[in-house]
Amino acid sequence: MTRRIGIIGMGHVGSTIAHCIVHNGYADDLVLIDKNKDKLIADALDFRDAQANLDYHTNIYVNDYSALGDADIVICSIGHIKAQLDPKHYGDRFVEFRLNIPEVKDAAKKVKEAGFHGVVIVITNPCDVMTTIFQRYSEFPKHKVIGTGTMLDSARMKRAVDEAFHVDPRSVSGYNMGEHGNSQFSAWSTIKVKDQPVVEMAEAYHFPIKKVEQSVRVGGYTVFAGKHYTNYAIASAACKLINIVMNDARTEVPVSNYRYKYDTYMSYPIILGRNGLIEQVHIDLTDSEQQKLADSAKFIQDKVNHIKEYVDE
Amino acid sequence: MTRRIGIIGMGHVGSTIAHCIVHNGYADDLVLIDKNKDKLIADALDFRDAQANLDYHTNIYVNDYSALGDADIVICSIGHIKAQLDPKHYGDRFVEFRLNIPEVKDAAKKVKEAGFHGVVIVITNPCDVMTTIFQRYSEFPKHKVIGTGTMLDSARMKRAVDEAFHVDPRSVSGYNMGEHGNSQFSAWSTIKVKDQPVVEMAEAYHFPIKKVEQSVRVGGYTVFAGKHYTNYAIASAACKLINIVMNDARTEVPVSNYRYKYDTYMSYPIILGRNGLIEQVHIDLTDSEQQKLADSAKFIQDKVNHIKEYVDE
Amino acid sequence: MTRRIGIIGMGHVGSTIAHCIVHNGYADDLVLIDKNKDKLIADALDFRDAQANLDYHTNIYVNDYSALGDADIVICSIGHIKAQLDPKHYGDRFVEFRLNIPEVKDAAKKVKEAGFHGVVIVITNPCDVMTTIFQRYSEFPKHKVIGTGTMLDSARMKRAVDEAFHVDPRSVSGYNMGEHGNSQFSAWSTIKVKDQPVVEMAEAYHFPIKKVEQSVRVGGYTVFAGKHYTNYAIASAACKLINIVMNDARTEVPVSNYRYKYDTYMSYPIILGRNGLIEQVHIDLTDSEQQKLADSAKFIQDKVNHIKEYVDE
Amino acid sequence: MTRRIGIIGMGHVGSTIAHCIVHNGYADDLVLIDKNKDKLIADALDFRDAQANLDYHTNIYVNDYSALGDADIVICSIGHIKAQLDPKHYGDRFVEFRLNIPEVKDAAKKVKEAGFHGVVIVITNPCDVMTTIFQRYSEFPKHKVIGTGTMLDSARMKRAVDEAFHVDPRSVSGYNMGEHGNSQFSAWSTIKVKDQPVVEMAEAYHFPIKKVEQSVRVGGYTVFAGKHYTNYAIASAACKLINIVMNDARTEVPVSNYRYKYDTYMSYPIILGRNGLIEQVHIDLTDSEQQKLADSAKFIQDKVNHIKEYVDE
Repeated sequence: MTRRIGIIGMGHVGSTIAHCIVHNGYADDLVLIDKNKDKLIADALDFRDAQANLDYHTNIYVNDYSALGDADIVICSIGHIKAQLDPKHYGDRFVEFRLNIPEVKDAAKKVKEAGFHGVVIVITNPCDVMTTIFQRYSEFPKHKVIGTGTMLDSARMKRAVDEAFHVDPRSVSGYNMGEHGNSQFSAWSTIKVKDQPVVEMAEAYHFPIKKVEQSVRVGGYTVFAGKHYTNYAIASAACKLINIVMNDARTEVPVSNYRYKYDTYMSYPIILGRNGLIEQVHIDLTDSEQQKLADSAKFIQDKVNHIKEYVDE
Repeated sequence: MTRRIGIIGMGHVGSTIAHCIVHNGYADDLVLIDKNKDKLIADALDFRDAQANLDYHTNIYVNDYSALGDADIVICSIGHIKAQLDPKHYGDRFVEFRLNIPEVKDAAKKVKEAGFHGVVIVITNPCDVMTTIFQRYSEFPKHKVIGTGTMLDSARMKRAVDEAFHVDPRSVSGYNMGEHGNSQFSAWSTIKVKDQPVVEMAEAYHFPIKKVEQSVRVGGYTVFAGKHYTNYAIASAACKLINIVMNDARTEVPVSNYRYKYDTYMSYPIILGRNGLIEQVHIDLTDSEQQKLADSAKFIQDKVNHIKEYVDE
Repeated sequence: MTRRIGIIGMGHVGSTIAHCIVHNGYADDLVLIDKNKDKLIADALDFRDAQANLDYHTNIYVNDYSALGDADIVICSIGHIKAQLDPKHYGDRFVEFRLNIPEVKDAAKKVKEAGFHGVVIVITNPCDVMTTIFQRYSEFPKHKVIGTGTMLDSARMKRAVDEAFHVDPRSVSGYNMGEHGNSQFSAWSTIKVKDQPVVEMAEAYHFPIKKVEQSVRVGGYTVFAGKHYTNYAIASAACKLINIVMNDARTEVPVSNYRYKYDTYMSYPIILGRNGLIEQVHIDLTDSEQQKLADSAKFIQDKVNHIKEYVDE
Repeated sequence: MTRRIGIIGMGHVGSTIAHCIVHNGYADDLVLIDKNKDKLIADALDFRDAQANLDYHTNIYVNDYSALGDADIVICSIGHIKAQLDPKHYGDRFVEFRLNIPEVKDAAKKVKEAGFHGVVIVITNPCDVMTTIFQRYSEFPKHKVIGTGTMLDSARMKRAVDEAFHVDPRSVSGYNMGEHGNSQFSAWSTIKVKDQPVVEMAEAYHFPIKKVEQSVRVGGYTVFAGKHYTNYAIASAACKLINIVMNDARTEVPVSNYRYKYDTYMSYPIILGRNGLIEQVHIDLTDSEQQKLADSAKFIQDKVNHIKEYVDE
């Protein structure tokens, strides 16, 4: 009955998603959860102070896991982005590893206890590892737990293509795949604009394909360097996923999903609907791209193997 | 031709407004201006990285005052909220006084030089003073320069009434008036819910009217205390004003506007449209409320008289 | 889980509401029901042909009462507007009386059988009578069945005031009450613009108050005369009610609801939420207005008393 | 300054587009033009009666060509759909030929006289011919006059693919091209779902490719047969184009545009922006598809050659 969304982790990303939901009426009930009670209550009050001037009304619940039992979607946006400001680990998504693991594990267990049976979308970095953790400790079916993964990196790739070819990024097709991190790759065999493969036009358009791929891979770093967090692009990606799941739209999106062949979560296009992953799409990658995918899978697996060091099973 | 909005000052408030605009397609062209180039470029890139996943496309221009010549609306959201974190001036909106004055003056002059002839909406605190400054140094007609003023405080008042009477804040009528600051007041003679004056029902509903008025007056402080800035409620108020001006909707709103009787900018309901202030509404305040209004006007005037100490005329 | 809406009666009004829902993503699942299968299938296909170009996806079900069991809202927009084109009954809402009664009764029974337990919004004319019939034969609790009633007439009144006072109709407060038909009245004691009673300003603004009231009362007739149906204004009123119920917004609206004092459905402001009627608001009407309300109630009761003549109990 | 749209021809299609614009605030000013004054005034009043319940305000002007001088976009939705109900010409888009020609010519001349310098989007059928006529008699640059063309047919093709492959029509890529009429074709070499060419999967999915192409070609007929007009899908296609032009989004869309190679207007993908056609995209069609395109072009040219018989030059 009506739409209920939970957001666990109300940092820059979680609160920006919450704002999108409240401003656009994407949900009727919104459950906000964070360990920093002062910040959480401040955000909740700020949202409620907004409502006299909004077109939609959203009922906001604070730090109440039990309210997630009937929720349609839970967003896991737990994060410790500030840890990346440490000069030793500047901008490294894996520095949050140790800090996020126990919190994501804890959240997964509490969401399960609440009786939640909807779709979980994990944003927490490193995304593929944290999606693995959420699925493992919630014991939810694998098709019901996905990560935003390279949905964001693909958007960044499209923006880079848009800049070179002067075309709406929504008119660029194709994917970044693999890890939401440094081992990801732009699957150029899939990337087209104006109905032509970008790689074939690269020279003519002075499009520095390797430089672009690298800039996309580290795409968040420019943003991170300028404001010490990223929030708007990831929030838009998450809101798109939220609406796809709610609408049961069965849309093709590149998100982190469990791939049996590689025995790991990583980003690869799927058909997404109200039940989560509806179907895994098969992409005809080149041999080189397949190798990159396998390498990226291995990179993620290595990290996943280290999870045990940080949690009490 | 099409909609162009400029935002000067891309801190928490300015960037949240920009996000609303980009996410909802409120403008076709968006001109973002800030002295902190790194933060500005980071936000602009973050918005562009969002666009592959958005329903609307917005063209984003960075630090280009000349692009404001054709703009419909300029938002002035310059701020130094961090100055309020200084224990000596914790949460005091006037602490930003000294810091904001020269920047708002500078912005006003540059917007004028750009040939802008639309409507200016000032959010910078102290709002009534900064609206005065923007109008003075831009030399724009007074009806074309307004401040968000108690549009936000009125929304907070409605939220407080909503909490007590369990009714949509959009179904609460009435205004907070005067200064967007401590000398403001809730004009209880105008405030109704369920078609009854709130004051008449206060006792029956255990509605602590004085406590509420005080909590609204310092409304931002709870939010400020929790996260060290406020952004969502003020952004929603600003977005509502933006759409009213664009649509030429002629809506009644309580915003900071120049009142000849009191010779100062302060918040009092007006009819707002594409040309800015269309008509000043007359409210039948009680004697007590009229006195509060006069007191608040005087309070603002005193501050305005100190402007000269901080700027070279 | 997620939002499901049913629309029974896909004539001009029902299909326009369905279009609003599909275009704006107000629902995730939409169940469309009509006796005219060809028209219904045509509309459903037209909506599906639209979806490649829309921002939201809506799952459309056709003529399946069983799909209403889990629905949040059922709209009853059954109608025989063409009957009003008969010269003998031109524009008379009661001419549809005989034609609509058995169909609304039938719909009510089928919705009940489907196990529906949400909120019913009746638009079918004569609205107050048909709301009575839907409640009677569905046996749903009275607070779960409302009619759009004078929500539309109030909007027309606000438009008329807007034309005279050059102000956003959303800035006009007050209500038309009683029957959604000729016995309704504008409760001028509640109607204000620019914070003044319209009646007090009528002379100064050359606002012909009686003529306006009459024009609003027959408001639909100008539209009806021009296109032989009305759809846009009623669809917007219905969509607003839909969102209020979905959001559990607890908004004050003038809709047809069962008034124990008068033992009839008629329009009077209520607080509306997810559970339907949350609270009946008390309006301080003048003696004259109270008399008009009583007269209107009696007018509706007389019609209701004739229902039996048209249905087999 | 702000957004202004004109709609010439307020039949089923024009009024549905107007409703979308009013409901969603796509324009600030809306100029509605139709020869049937009663219907036009009825629609305008119906829209104004809606505004008290809407989130946006739209200023509506009626039958005022002079108001188009500053407009950003003019929609030409003149039509005589009822002529297609004549059993001799049932559903034949060319039957409207004779009736529409003089009206579109007249509209083109009046829009030119008004000083309009924005983008014209022609919907009137037969679309490619009427786009030709509008451009010819307005003497606007060819890149500023386009027709909705196979934007609608492409959406219908995507819907058909969606039905067979159970995937969001927005996740189907590819185009219907050529005439918006019987000589059009689905360019199967461009049509993909789940990153595979639909033709390659057709057998496995029991997807009757020829039958689907035919059903799409006559797609409107099922809708037309059921309700004697089509409006929702074409309105959504038009609204998408409106927003692309307003936003200057530079999106790739299959619309009717002037192709020098074939010396005719016909549908082929272009990059669309605020200035109209920004760039013609080159599609690598198969030899067979190129032949179909040439045939379709010839078919349109033949019709265009008959224009002179119906107008005084």
